[in-house]
Amino acid sequence: MPVTVSHKEQMDLIVAVLRGLGATEEEAFIQADVWTEADLRGIHSHGVQRLPVMVTRIQKGLMKVNVKPERVWSTNSVLNVDGKDGFGTAVCETSLRELTPAVRKHGVGVLTVRNAAHIGMVGYYAERRALEGLICLAFTTTEVLVHPFGGAEALVGTNPIAIGIPGIKRPFLLDMATSVSAMGRIIAFKHRGEKIPEGWAIDKDGNPTTDPDAALHGSLDPAGGPKGYGLGISIAMLSGLLAGMPCGREVLGTLDTDYRCTVGDLFILIDPQAFPGGPTLAAGVQRYLEELRASKPGKGFKQVSVPGDPESKLRDERLKTGIPHPEEVWHAAEQLRSTIVK
Amino acid sequence: MPVTVSHKEQMDLIVAVLRGLGATEEEAFIQADVWTEADLRGIHSHGVQRLPVMVTRIQKGLMKVNVKPERVWSTNSVLNVDGKDGFGTAVCETSLRELTPAVRKHGVGVLTVRNAAHIGMVGYYAERRALEGLICLAFTTTEVLVHPFGGAEALVGTNPIAIGIPGIKRPFLLDMATSVSAMGRIIAFKHRGEKIPEGWAIDKDGNPTTDPDAALHGSLDPAGGPKGYGLGISIAMLSGLLAGMPCGREVLGTLDTDYRCTVGDLFILIDPQAFPGGPTLAAGVQRYLEELRASKPGKGFKQVSVPGDPESKLRDERLKTGIPHPEEVWHAAEQLRSTIVK
Repeated sequence: MPVTVSHKEQMDLIVAVLRGLGATEEEAFIQADVWTEADLRGIHSHGVQRLPVMVTRIQKGLMKVNVKPERVWSTNSVLNVDGKDGFGTAVCETSLRELTPAVRKHGVGVLTVRNAAHIGMVGYYAERRALEGLICLAFTTTEVLVHPFGGAEALVGTNPIAIGIPGIKRPFLLDMATSVSAMGRIIAFKHRGEKIPEGWAIDKDGNPTTDPDAALHGSLDPAGGPKGYGLGISIAMLSGLLAGMPCGREVLGTLDTDYRCTVGDLFILIDPQAFPGGPTLAAGVQRYLEELRASKPGKGFKQVSVPGDPESKLRDERLKTGIPHPEEVWHAAEQLRSTIVK
Repeated sequence: MPVTVSHKEQMDLIVAVLRGLGATEEEAFIQADVWTEADLRGIHSHGVQRLPVMVTRIQKGLMKVNVKPERVWSTNSVLNVDGKDGFGTAVCETSLRELTPAVRKHGVGVLTVRNAAHIGMVGYYAERRALEGLICLAFTTTEVLVHPFGGAEALVGTNPIAIGIPGIKRPFLLDMATSVSAMGRIIAFKHRGEKIPEGWAIDKDGNPTTDPDAALHGSLDPAGGPKGYGLGISIAMLSGLLAGMPCGREVLGTLDTDYRCTVGDLFILIDPQAFPGGPTLAAGVQRYLEELRASKPGKGFKQVSVPGDPESKLRDERLKTGIPHPEEVWHAAEQLRSTIVK
């Protein structure tokens, strides 16, 4: 029995719970916004269902509220931030805003964030920068869930990349993990009692499997075999190591309630106005994407889609009709409010 | 009957031909080096077999020799170069060298190149920067050969990405197209009279095919379906449009002898020393890659490989034993020398 809630109801609930735990207005709002934007787009694995884990993490002291990040400019274009175990969402978003004037001045700027909690849907930040007219490449690390191409052990995170590029009607937004699928989707197959498609995962012994249970004890296949693997480990090294954080098995603390968060985040921001194609970029983006959408569909497809299109459509609908949640997800969030908010 | 030539023989031949056509010493050497590095690594599609097409392009005036690129710094960190229809290889490599001091000063720098010929194996530039201690993300565009995920028409280039990261013994190098395979490999299957694997290509009507002929008249599948598609069009817009060049169908002139080259090239250089993890980056890279190599292989694999490993091994061998070429490839190159070099 799903419960449907409005954008405002969800924002208010999350803000109230986090404020009740001592988060600042800014921390609570940005965290609520990141989760709610994910739920609006149907990416529920990165939405309000993560609230109970975060509450436990805060209560156990694994994550801190009311934190002042330590921001150090190593050059006029590079900002390195120690998040002091605070909200990854707020630390990243506020640091990106601080970086922006330097990007407009120098044409490019880089932000790394370390010692901060999970930043949620990485496309959130890329889309916002693109709405402000900047190009953003965003990377983060995750716990190891993916095996190397040709390997049998989970040694790579789903390490996502997001790319935001200014457009006319709305920005172009790519937001993708470097694995074929996500553990969250495999859990959903398990709940429905269905087999997972071939090519998604291997079992703990390294054999391809369509059994969701075996996959959950095994590891995810990298997207496109050696290519997703290559990108995944590149992101591990760029986003993890460069930020001064670990990569591989030492990345912890995004889903559990036992460890400090050890992800690393990397953002490269580019101002198109510093480039020959800058003045006509948005129009060119619009023209190319329209050409793709209008092109001949392949066998079994009705229309060619552009990354971000389905999510954007769903978001528009849900802003009007509300966000559906499984009853237990919303109930858990409401319970936390009644316990925490006096 | 393959012919085996030494590294020096191949370099000398290419330099002689290009010098004979009026190229400067620097243009000829860099072009020869890019092609020869590709052949050493077994990437023959990007090696000396491209010489006859380039000679024709120069003779027809589609490509220029002895060119002075127009270099404009739009900010202290952004260099935009008009290659004046010259060698893409020499324009990129010399411009990257010019950008490097700015990268060391500001921690990051960006180069775009427009109006220059095909830059060859994009990993060439990324690896060189990594050998100098810098991180390099390199992108370029190609003619449309790939269909959108869910589409039936070629509207996307194989648009490759290369990522170079400093290491201990040697740099980490990822160099990959965003399609599953390459047209060159499909041509090789055709020559051997073999079917291509499923999931590589579709025919001209959008149906999956294992017939190399049908694939050559159709289009390549993007790597990892929607993911390679998303990356491919991102690179089209970033590398093409940002550089002031087109994307999609208007990209021409890398393989043909009819059009000026209209690719766009984008390089993002990062100095690790401006980042918290900089001082320990190479050691961390080495440790992670060793862990991957030593991990348990999957079904049907003997060992887990790291991107760049097989190419690096082959390069070491061929520096000793020489580079094998089909007789007609080497013969064509020698013929050009005897015609052009008086």
